[in-house]
Amino acid sequence: MASPGPHGADDAIDYGPLAHWVAFHLRMAQVVSFQAFARLAHGENLSPGRFAVLTLIGQNPGISQTALSRANRNDKSTLTSALRGLVQKKLVNRQRAAGDKRLYRLTLTAAGEKLLRRLTECAKQHDRNLMRVIGPRDYAHFMQILQKIANEIG
Amino acid sequence: MASPGPHGADDAIDYGPLAHWVAFHLRMAQVVSFQAFARLAHGENLSPGRFAVLTLIGQNPGISQTALSRANRNDKSTLTSALRGLVQKKLVNRQRAAGDKRLYRLTLTAAGEKLLRRLTECAKQHDRNLMRVIGPRDYAHFMQILQKIANEIG
Repeated sequence: MASPGPHGADDAIDYGPLAHWVAFHLRMAQVVSFQAFARLAHGENLSPGRFAVLTLIGQNPGISQTALSRANRNDKSTLTSALRGLVQKKLVNRQRAAGDKRLYRLTLTAAGEKLLRRLTECAKQHDRNLMRVIGPRDYAHFMQILQKIANEIG
Repeated sequence: MASPGPHGADDAIDYGPLAHWVAFHLRMAQVVSFQAFARLAHGENLSPGRFAVLTLIGQNPGISQTALSRANRNDKSTLTSALRGLVQKKLVNRQRAAGDKRLYRLTLTAAGEKLLRRLTECAKQHDRNLMRVIGPRDYAHFMQILQKIANEIG
């Protein structure tokens, strides 16, 4: 198995069983992909998870917190904390539904829409970079395996 | 493209561009894999990132903070915060090196070794579950692509 480390910088490190566990390599790829996206979006202090929340609200104006938490695979406390941050930054409006006072409807503010447009450009660039690394031949199959994990491991 | 959502529970959700971005699916797979590992390790409140730190210290007793941060792809502040938590839980010892007072050497405590053994069993089970979902034919190739992303996207 090839060293999971960067460019031989950690030749002396013994990864032990981590070297053979797919969950470790999944996390490493996700951490490094996260860092690369953050560099493209420099100046915008928004994690990929919150960017996904912003996109889902933008695509589904008025979405409920429950539907959003299911779509983004967040537990309730993670999503509540993400939404609190987005509301504080005045990117998201959180309003009680007229018919059901327990239900909140989420929409983007004008500032939220503007930021979403900027970050969407960064994400497109990031995806082109990832596609180049993965290679056009393996890209679709790799996506299928990721979706299989998200749908079947739970 | 198949819906990235769980078992049709989010039929009405429009994922917009997220549906086509590999970074989104990488994060979804990582989030769901994280949740599945946490369920296997129930009672042990330790994230996969901190579990990797514990494993790397266990495999490389006396490792420096710099080498550890490189091996686990953590920036300095993320690693410092993880180590503070592990030292507080009395799982890791952090001692100044004799020759160089700016250098810290990290080792596991007896409690750290015991927890590492328990979580390693959970991780083996988790990896068998992931291998079953991915399929034996695609497993090695999937690992290679994840390593390629971690090594080349940065």
